[in-house]
Amino acid sequence: MNANIEDMTPDVEAEIARVREEVARLHGELVRYGLVIWTGGNVSGRVPGTDYFVIKPSGVAYDDLAPDNMILCTLDGEVVPGTAGSERSPSSDTAAHAYVYREMPEVGGVVHTHSTYAVAWAARGEEIPCVITGMADEFGGPIPVGPFAVIGDDSIGRGIVETLRGHRSRAVLMQNHGPFTIGANANDAVKAAVMCEDVARSVHLAMQAGPVVPIPQEKIDSLYARYQNVYGQAGDARR
Amino acid sequence: MNANIEDMTPDVEAEIARVREEVARLHGELVRYGLVIWTGGNVSGRVPGTDYFVIKPSGVAYDDLAPDNMILCTLDGEVVPGTAGSERSPSSDTAAHAYVYREMPEVGGVVHTHSTYAVAWAARGEEIPCVITGMADEFGGPIPVGPFAVIGDDSIGRGIVETLRGHRSRAVLMQNHGPFTIGANANDAVKAAVMCEDVARSVHLAMQAGPVVPIPQEKIDSLYARYQNVYGQAGDARR
Amino acid sequence: MNANIEDMTPDVEAEIARVREEVARLHGELVRYGLVIWTGGNVSGRVPGTDYFVIKPSGVAYDDLAPDNMILCTLDGEVVPGTAGSERSPSSDTAAHAYVYREMPEVGGVVHTHSTYAVAWAARGEEIPCVITGMADEFGGPIPVGPFAVIGDDSIGRGIVETLRGHRSRAVLMQNHGPFTIGANANDAVKAAVMCEDVARSVHLAMQAGPVVPIPQEKIDSLYARYQNVYGQAGDARR
Amino acid sequence: MNANIEDMTPDVEAEIARVREEVARLHGELVRYGLVIWTGGNVSGRVPGTDYFVIKPSGVAYDDLAPDNMILCTLDGEVVPGTAGSERSPSSDTAAHAYVYREMPEVGGVVHTHSTYAVAWAARGEEIPCVITGMADEFGGPIPVGPFAVIGDDSIGRGIVETLRGHRSRAVLMQNHGPFTIGANANDAVKAAVMCEDVARSVHLAMQAGPVVPIPQEKIDSLYARYQNVYGQAGDARR
Repeated sequence: MNANIEDMTPDVEAEIARVREEVARLHGELVRYGLVIWTGGNVSGRVPGTDYFVIKPSGVAYDDLAPDNMILCTLDGEVVPGTAGSERSPSSDTAAHAYVYREMPEVGGVVHTHSTYAVAWAARGEEIPCVITGMADEFGGPIPVGPFAVIGDDSIGRGIVETLRGHRSRAVLMQNHGPFTIGANANDAVKAAVMCEDVARSVHLAMQAGPVVPIPQEKIDSLYARYQNVYGQAGDARR
Repeated sequence: MNANIEDMTPDVEAEIARVREEVARLHGELVRYGLVIWTGGNVSGRVPGTDYFVIKPSGVAYDDLAPDNMILCTLDGEVVPGTAGSERSPSSDTAAHAYVYREMPEVGGVVHTHSTYAVAWAARGEEIPCVITGMADEFGGPIPVGPFAVIGDDSIGRGIVETLRGHRSRAVLMQNHGPFTIGANANDAVKAAVMCEDVARSVHLAMQAGPVVPIPQEKIDSLYARYQNVYGQAGDARR
Repeated sequence: MNANIEDMTPDVEAEIARVREEVARLHGELVRYGLVIWTGGNVSGRVPGTDYFVIKPSGVAYDDLAPDNMILCTLDGEVVPGTAGSERSPSSDTAAHAYVYREMPEVGGVVHTHSTYAVAWAARGEEIPCVITGMADEFGGPIPVGPFAVIGDDSIGRGIVETLRGHRSRAVLMQNHGPFTIGANANDAVKAAVMCEDVARSVHLAMQAGPVVPIPQEKIDSLYARYQNVYGQAGDARR
Repeated sequence: MNANIEDMTPDVEAEIARVREEVARLHGELVRYGLVIWTGGNVSGRVPGTDYFVIKPSGVAYDDLAPDNMILCTLDGEVVPGTAGSERSPSSDTAAHAYVYREMPEVGGVVHTHSTYAVAWAARGEEIPCVITGMADEFGGPIPVGPFAVIGDDSIGRGIVETLRGHRSRAVLMQNHGPFTIGANANDAVKAAVMCEDVARSVHLAMQAGPVVPIPQEKIDSLYARYQNVYGQAGDARR
């Protein structure tokens, strides 16, 4: 893949700058919704029309994140030398993000957190059943569990792709670990991370106090179909 | 109904402007009390003396809400063309709000959220029993459950009206979905949404740890009667 | 009692101004610690050396509270006419505060909230056992439950006084209602309200997951004795 | 030990100033993550290359903490006279911090809180099992319980040291009391306090809803080894 920064056209440079700004800003949403603590969690965004993506540096405080310290990587997960932020190490989850971008070309954003309730379901290896209409809208069914996998090779990325490929859900709970979400772009993946924690919490609380009422499958199907096509303003990347 | 903006008198225009400001501002209360995430949830307010109401646009971030992008609708739920914000789509729950305004002329405000604990009760289809005096004050008894209904026709609006008509409670938990609240005006409906989540949480926690003490019905009745008549400052729309 | 504002000396006026400022400011602590929503909850403070106390107006938003709209009352719970804020109604819990000030001369501040976990214990009519050392420090034993009592006469005030007189705890959980706390001054009563909710939450969570370890009574006694005498800076009203 | 301020070199003075600033600032992280209320909790930091450490004053509000009111102590826990802040009493937990610094020379920071979920585990005297990968990364296994000990002599300090010496965990849950954490420096100890509460909450919630999946010991070992060596940016004190 082309990782030679000197060959970049002004258009590609502008697009990289836009994604850097978006990815830096979206980390603030993880903080706002209480999905991350300290330096944990990460957002990445694909640079459309290129073989690059932008991701958070490793171990840097959320207060200190800015477009210029986001890190530009190739789809192999290698830092592009000579670019802003390239003197730092990228997120320790970079290999997993890169794997997803290589294998799922429709994915434009990836998010990972250790958000509390999603981690609780993950620690039991239990998928979240679809018992609320907001979850049917957003995820179209249960949020599935992915395999136990440890950092260090492609096994986390593979587990994400194997679980989410062909699945309606944009979120997977990696067993004993936590949620990864994907989206059409970084904003969409962050929305999925926020909604994943929200439904993890609501369904946990619902089931703690007694049996929940199931939603018939055909209702889930129609809610999901409608939400993907109707909600939001015309022209939004993901309405 | 009259949806011709050119026929509006200056008085009606001033009243619309006032309600736009109030409805935009009140969305901030949903954020402050943690009742909504991302672009979910919506507040509407009837324009007194007219056949209009003002509601949030669909899929717009809370940070971006302002009087001028609130949307003016007729009681049929149609956007009034040529008015501020009318280039956008109104909340996907607009039909339900409109149904309530048509059927319950005493209602001046409607709120919908997916607040966590209220959704948990809704997912079990279980009404919230009135076991705390603050709930007796505000709701005069249990918070009831409304039918399962999906978006797309009048069924959500009908379910709200059938459940709340003649009921003391200004809140209904739509099964598997979440709370809708009504009020004398938008502020009152937002207060009901805030209190609904608060009692949903307190009663959930109370019952998780053992049996609760019932409150005698006559005490609930007298608390409710007193609160409706005495609390707050003389002259408040809803004290 | 002397409620004639024209007879007040400059010293009394200065003291009233100081307590107005303190009581207004302390309401912000209830908000900061999430103990209140909307206009619920109230703080009052006795004006030392007088038969007056200062309390929050009824049904006014927390954002709008300021020294000048706090309300000066006699120990009979009557608003002192002609003083700042006297055009408004005082908190609907004013009679209970007044009763406490009349019966317990050592009390200089009273606080009432519907804080979530304290209300949950109150709804079960269950005292909070003293199983954490921070609770032994602050309350010297369990936080007791007071009787069921409704607003409108002296029964809430009487219930508070009968429960707390001679008790180490500065907090009482009024059954099905919520916590009232007392203190040497308003700041001390607010601290008790904050600590009461904190231990209500911690002990609730501890007991949800299994049996707790009891603390021997003599250890509770020595922790309490030490904290009352040693903690904080010399010269603090309540260290 | 040398507690004569007049013998200090400019280098030592500069180092003390740096640690004062760091310790004052880090208290803000306890507030940000909701680990402390009112004046509870404390952070200390060793002054490298000296026999001093810096700690919070007793009973002072978090809003009022600043480098100049942090207190400089000897490793015996005595305030160094004539230094900034020395007119105040140090934290009531100073003896425990001092004991840890004397006995564990590798420790550069100590933190104590009464954070909610950690206290809940402590009240049951139950260690937190290592069932999430983020906990394996950070703590390398379970978070252990220390003995019941009351303030007033060395018994809290001894309990901390006996539990954590030779243990991978930087956090200990003192029975019926709450967490103490240690670290290479104050920042590292605060991170451990934040992570301790986070895993206490996640594992509590996971276990409330059913059995958790154990992580094989060799996976815990490899996650811990990797995280200690790889995570973060090269050159960080604790990556």
